[in-house]
Amino acid sequence: MRWSKALIPTLKETPSEAEVVSHQLMLRAGLMRRVASGIYTYLLLGWRSIRKVEQIVREEMDRTGALEIFMPVLSPAELWRESGRWDVYGKDLMRLEDRHDRQFALGPTHEEVITDLIRRELQSYRSLPLAMYQIQTKFRDELRPRFGVMRGREFIMKDAYSFHADDASLDEYYHVMYDAYSRIFSRCGLATDAVMADSGAIGGSDTHEFTVPSDAGETHVLRCPDCGHAATDETADGTIADVGDGGSPETLEEVHTPDMRTVEEVCGFLGVDPPQLIKTLIFESSDGPLVGLVRGDREINPAKLRAAAGVSVLDMAAPATIEKLTGADVGFAGPVGLTGVRIFADRSIERMTNLVSGANRTDYHVRNINPGRDFKPTAYADITVVVPGDGCPQCGTPLEGYRAIEVGQIFKLGRKYSESFGVRLDGEDGTELVPTMGCYGIGITRTVAAVIEQHHDANGIIWPKSVTPYHVLITEINPGDAAIRETSDRIYEDLTSRGVEVLLDDRDERPGFKFKDADLVGMPLRVTIGPKGLAKGQVELRWRHDGTTVEVAPEECPQKVQEWVESDE
Amino acid sequence: MRWSKALIPTLKETPSEAEVVSHQLMLRAGLMRRVASGIYTYLLLGWRSIRKVEQIVREEMDRTGALEIFMPVLSPAELWRESGRWDVYGKDLMRLEDRHDRQFALGPTHEEVITDLIRRELQSYRSLPLAMYQIQTKFRDELRPRFGVMRGREFIMKDAYSFHADDASLDEYYHVMYDAYSRIFSRCGLATDAVMADSGAIGGSDTHEFTVPSDAGETHVLRCPDCGHAATDETADGTIADVGDGGSPETLEEVHTPDMRTVEEVCGFLGVDPPQLIKTLIFESSDGPLVGLVRGDREINPAKLRAAAGVSVLDMAAPATIEKLTGADVGFAGPVGLTGVRIFADRSIERMTNLVSGANRTDYHVRNINPGRDFKPTAYADITVVVPGDGCPQCGTPLEGYRAIEVGQIFKLGRKYSESFGVRLDGEDGTELVPTMGCYGIGITRTVAAVIEQHHDANGIIWPKSVTPYHVLITEINPGDAAIRETSDRIYEDLTSRGVEVLLDDRDERPGFKFKDADLVGMPLRVTIGPKGLAKGQVELRWRHDGTTVEVAPEECPQKVQEWVESDE
Repeated sequence: MRWSKALIPTLKETPSEAEVVSHQLMLRAGLMRRVASGIYTYLLLGWRSIRKVEQIVREEMDRTGALEIFMPVLSPAELWRESGRWDVYGKDLMRLEDRHDRQFALGPTHEEVITDLIRRELQSYRSLPLAMYQIQTKFRDELRPRFGVMRGREFIMKDAYSFHADDASLDEYYHVMYDAYSRIFSRCGLATDAVMADSGAIGGSDTHEFTVPSDAGETHVLRCPDCGHAATDETADGTIADVGDGGSPETLEEVHTPDMRTVEEVCGFLGVDPPQLIKTLIFESSDGPLVGLVRGDREINPAKLRAAAGVSVLDMAAPATIEKLTGADVGFAGPVGLTGVRIFADRSIERMTNLVSGANRTDYHVRNINPGRDFKPTAYADITVVVPGDGCPQCGTPLEGYRAIEVGQIFKLGRKYSESFGVRLDGEDGTELVPTMGCYGIGITRTVAAVIEQHHDANGIIWPKSVTPYHVLITEINPGDAAIRETSDRIYEDLTSRGVEVLLDDRDERPGFKFKDADLVGMPLRVTIGPKGLAKGQVELRWRHDGTTVEVAPEECPQKVQEWVESDE
Repeated sequence: MRWSKALIPTLKETPSEAEVVSHQLMLRAGLMRRVASGIYTYLLLGWRSIRKVEQIVREEMDRTGALEIFMPVLSPAELWRESGRWDVYGKDLMRLEDRHDRQFALGPTHEEVITDLIRRELQSYRSLPLAMYQIQTKFRDELRPRFGVMRGREFIMKDAYSFHADDASLDEYYHVMYDAYSRIFSRCGLATDAVMADSGAIGGSDTHEFTVPSDAGETHVLRCPDCGHAATDETADGTIADVGDGGSPETLEEVHTPDMRTVEEVCGFLGVDPPQLIKTLIFESSDGPLVGLVRGDREINPAKLRAAAGVSVLDMAAPATIEKLTGADVGFAGPVGLTGVRIFADRSIERMTNLVSGANRTDYHVRNINPGRDFKPTAYADITVVVPGDGCPQCGTPLEGYRAIEVGQIFKLGRKYSESFGVRLDGEDGTELVPTMGCYGIGITRTVAAVIEQHHDANGIIWPKSVTPYHVLITEINPGDAAIRETSDRIYEDLTSRGVEVLLDDRDERPGFKFKDADLVGMPLRVTIGPKGLAKGQVELRWRHDGTTVEVAPEECPQKVQEWVESDE
């Protein structure tokens, strides 16, 4: 490709809309342009990288035995009602009505469509296990689209679904996919961690996120430096660091705390430290109101509380609900004397003494609360958000925390969808069989952004060879010079005929300008053809990642370049 | 791929919903399944064929110098309002509102998005010519989706757009694309005709449709058997066959025709033939009401009338408009005495005498109308739908008619979009330049259907080698037999390692059942491995298109098959 014939709109300045490096560089290097908030057109260079990631994903999916298919963007509402997600998904789900007023979702994921397919087409256990995948445009109406393609509203995903006769078969394929994911990201030049994750709106049991450590990420990972155990903060278990117990139990006492509602206000007024406080949070759940208790210095983890209480939906309760339950204004709830509601207390509360909490009476708190003596929760459970410094659940070593980009996730779905869609197959023993399922996603466009987050410097992108838009950039110095033009053309044609992907910067621009663009668009190898070198019978090969250079004769250049392209370097 | 591990849900019976052969066979051979009206999931075999067509299209588009990009499905309404198509497109355009009530179209085509991109990113004539294409899912909310993917609501298209400094450059690229299209369809195994077409809602001047003759098609083509000139009936010119002039002019006379409105009623009552009648049709246009006159035995062509009158929008007038204009009930309009409206008469009317038409008075007609004497139209023009038997506009030979599938269309758009989007580039001579545009579509999924329409027999599909899901189907007879299983596996592995695409029918089914499925799914070459042949040291190669067979030794089979795959046969 000749740059003069291409549309590669590089930018000198960083667009103000772009907060993270990958977003900045995807705009600056002309990989894409914004069409609307969270919606992009991928231009020549961006699209070439995306297609290379797609191809790597495709090869590895095929290796697992999954069949490539292509499901529609438009998903009938009836299917989403069968699964219950038409309501659960909320505003993230883009919806439309056709000319006959039939409702459709723009698929953010395809469990419904594929489970319906399986229900119609499969009769017998003999067809299992069966896995299918697609690479497709997906939609999610993010409240705040940001970070470019990292949190976009229209993006490209690979999604795969597997169906199994039993858990052993699902386990086996889950591991096959785990390995495939590891190979995919490694082939893309990404260093990833597989961490335990929350299954969110998709539902299911075991799940791992494949994450790329990066400050641009929105996933918080907790990792044990000793045993390697890792999980997102949405799901991480851990031992909450102890802070002493508060001494021998003293007499329960109600105190007047006019208008003191926050942890800071109450602690300041009563002269106690936040860990001595019980934070009392009231939720609405699919099973009625619920109360969660955590230490005043910590946060509650809704996913863990959901699991502990065995409920599928959990939202903060409305003020009216809280006031009805406690008989007091919001801000004065506490466990003492609270009845008619299930109460889940974090384990870290159990061993404390002489605690403070709301009195369920406006403008009053209670002090010297002793769990067991003054209230008995429905259950003690681990419901606190684990933070760096808490103990690893496996070995006790203090956990380390970092931010990361989620590029893929694998789930054991179980029978959530096959049950709700009434999938029934003939089983091996003559009984009916409800298949168990797995689902497996990779953000294709997000993976490209993650690659850039991990591979760049102050001057631009540094593409790994496997996903670079072109292997080589030829920079012509002084393209008006006939000898240079001729040498460039010859090397360009020769490389192309060898199957090397070449971008030829034949633009009539100053060398400094072209070198800056070369660093910005970041092809791994640059061939510079200029008058000084040519006078010595040389062209320069320069590697983008470390700036090393080699001078070679023009006639040797194509062979040298091809050898590097085909090497494992 | 082993059939036992794949999802290839073949059907013995023809689904009642499928009217045309390609739709029947795409369902019966398990290429796809319906998700909703006009919306399909493509399964293993269908998706493999689609991807092969995509790859052929991609290679030929790249050869023209077009850049591959990828624009979003979601197109902001503001862009469609700029072009005026938000209103013009009507209910065919699928629309939605996001969570912030912003409106989007689901792109049926991308002139708006790409012209907006060009407006933002291009500064100078030096960037021209520039062509870009994408292969993408498109949406059109058809009133009556039918014929499977032939007229679907969600389908895959290649759309390309080119930008040029002048008409000469557009002409040149238009020809390059014309040739690329010819190669694409020929490589897909399709015999196509390029015919002149109407530009419809996209707008523009020159345009050709690439059509595949087929009774399943919805395009009517008129073709000269002598000179080869061809056009769709929406646009075809031709000489309307003469029927005699009606004799010497007689005296104009009003006759009472109570409740006689149709051509048949009036002709029967007055004892004249339909060609002696003037059919008077009243339209609403973007420039007010318009009248079109054609012979009573022929139909008016709205596209030609639109062109003759120089208006962009043309709809049948409402009864109230007709009554106001003629002063009579609907059914009694005629040109005599009709004022205050532009009248366009077909040329075939000009040479007629003593005609009949409505009297612009309820229950009355006028006879012995002589054009020129009794009324003068604004203009005579060719506004009749040409039918088989009319004269070729180039050589006069009677035209032949047939139905065809439109698989591609190329347009010269001109400056319609670049003007409405205010695209201004620096011209070579220092003046401002508004680029002229072309646009170029191929229905990818429809092309697969057209291939099946042209390549099938009573037993199933007969895939051309270039777009077949797999090159070879191995049919194991009696897969329980260890020798057969072993031979099949060895040949399967050997062929796969040679890059041959193989589907191995390893299912435990009767031979007759497997042969029927083999014919249905239609791989071009079948290798049959059975006990009788193997006893003689032979396996059978059988070509699907003509049923010829060759017996070869198992060890020679992979080499023979590879040779055929790589041959031009």
